[in-house]
Amino acid sequence: MGKLLIVGTVAFDAIETPFGKTDKILGGAATFIGLAASNFEIDSAIVSVVGDDFPDKHLKLLTDRKIDISAVEIVEGGKTFFWKGKYMNDLNVRETLDTQLNVLADFKPVVPAQYTESEILMLGNLHPNVQLGVIDQMETKPALTILDTMNFWMDNTPEELKEVIRKVDVITINDEEARQLSGEYSLVNAAAKIHEMGPKYVVIKKGEHGALLFHNENIFFAPALPLKEIFDPTGAGDTFAGGFAGYLAASKDYSFENMKNAVIHGSNLASFSVEKFGTERMETLKKTEINRRLQQFKDLTQFDIKLA
Amino acid sequence: MGKLLIVGTVAFDAIETPFGKTDKILGGAATFIGLAASNFEIDSAIVSVVGDDFPDKHLKLLTDRKIDISAVEIVEGGKTFFWKGKYMNDLNVRETLDTQLNVLADFKPVVPAQYTESEILMLGNLHPNVQLGVIDQMETKPALTILDTMNFWMDNTPEELKEVIRKVDVITINDEEARQLSGEYSLVNAAAKIHEMGPKYVVIKKGEHGALLFHNENIFFAPALPLKEIFDPTGAGDTFAGGFAGYLAASKDYSFENMKNAVIHGSNLASFSVEKFGTERMETLKKTEINRRLQQFKDLTQFDIKLA
Repeated sequence: MGKLLIVGTVAFDAIETPFGKTDKILGGAATFIGLAASNFEIDSAIVSVVGDDFPDKHLKLLTDRKIDISAVEIVEGGKTFFWKGKYMNDLNVRETLDTQLNVLADFKPVVPAQYTESEILMLGNLHPNVQLGVIDQMETKPALTILDTMNFWMDNTPEELKEVIRKVDVITINDEEARQLSGEYSLVNAAAKIHEMGPKYVVIKKGEHGALLFHNENIFFAPALPLKEIFDPTGAGDTFAGGFAGYLAASKDYSFENMKNAVIHGSNLASFSVEKFGTERMETLKKTEINRRLQQFKDLTQFDIKLA
Repeated sequence: MGKLLIVGTVAFDAIETPFGKTDKILGGAATFIGLAASNFEIDSAIVSVVGDDFPDKHLKLLTDRKIDISAVEIVEGGKTFFWKGKYMNDLNVRETLDTQLNVLADFKPVVPAQYTESEILMLGNLHPNVQLGVIDQMETKPALTILDTMNFWMDNTPEELKEVIRKVDVITINDEEARQLSGEYSLVNAAAKIHEMGPKYVVIKKGEHGALLFHNENIFFAPALPLKEIFDPTGAGDTFAGGFAGYLAASKDYSFENMKNAVIHGSNLASFSVEKFGTERMETLKKTEINRRLQQFKDLTQFDIKLA
């Protein structure tokens, strides 16, 4: 039972899709990562910050999932980070309507003592300086440090981001971000360039087109499960990362072969996340449902060609 | 050693990509299908038409591959079908610059007597009435009739196309065409609708994002092999179809499980086709190269999650 330390946002989202819209609901990278990872037998903790407008029921949801939230700082008189966005018809394009950093603006993360020797450190999307601050607080270098980030930091804090990238073992980003970060169109070439920046493992998330894992000359691909409908993509990438990190923390096997399984587990959990608004589907997800869908992933991808 | 009868265009293409351009080179659906299928142990024949401007060396290329071209009609004084197109930077978007039907306009296909009992009939992209004409000439119903078509026929001859679709076992089309044909955005729903139109098997080609095989509630997915560069996508879909049909004709096993292998073989051959202009790469392709890349497909997709 490995320890997984998660840093990232715990937030409010307001979401509009072609299928409906929400008021402020529970969101945030660390939230989705934590919920996904909680499906595995691990010790996990979240380092984050919220305002005193953040409802107890959301925090209870996390503690019910055995996630340690002692390092989720609650700022008296502060307001929780808020993101409002709208998805277009094809759901691959989204527009940010509003972003209010609020308490996130001055956030100084503090890693709980019992998690400074975690096997896995998962750096969810957040200011690179906050991610660096967490890396620096680790007493022992984690077996695996995983970074999730996005184009916003490539545009606004490229040097700080590059310093984080140099220090991590795995980076997970989407295809357009991989192209932006590397200046290469081909994802094979993009992964090779990013590899040179530091990470031994590069995971490129392609949304409904699946995810690629690169390690030296090795490539593994996991499709997204073909679904009748995708309701809300918010948090799918974080859920993927949480499943990936959670499975690896539970199995304590960081080989490339086992990372393939981690990518499948991440894709599997993400396939549930998109079925309802926000965290709704992940809140009720059962082990039997997870296993049934893992079997679907096998049926979807496994074949039996004998080679001479 | 099954018989595979192929009907489709044998043509001239002029291609422009971000990487270069060609004058008139060998092209056509039946050409790509035939070349791909010739990598398997089968008896194959092409039914098509060319003008007397068509060089002997192109015909020799086909006969060297043991493809029976006795039913490729050569029209004296006629000109060969010509297509000119240009690919944009992302290679998923292409523009047709010129189409000259020429001898194709009055083409009346004649199926050679020894191929009227073929195990597999592969209807390459062509006017639905020509495809129907070939279906009608079969003495025995093929074990598998496979249709490849495109949006041009959905726009211009929808009723004739629907009649062909009713009569085939397998349809292969791309994702946008599947959406157009079914009126459904989700590919899962699109496949279900197309299934109701006739075909027991629906293959949806997604270009660089792979291919999906649907049969009732079963789905199989093959990724496209991630490549450093894609040089020319022309004929990739036909090469896929030719590999699919050729493998099935050779193995004579038309089960869903074996069709998974056929989809992998089709994807594998298509990954070569895009590496050079037109048919160039397929002309020199060796068995050892094919097998090496099949192993890459296995490494890319196979994983080992034990389910409780």
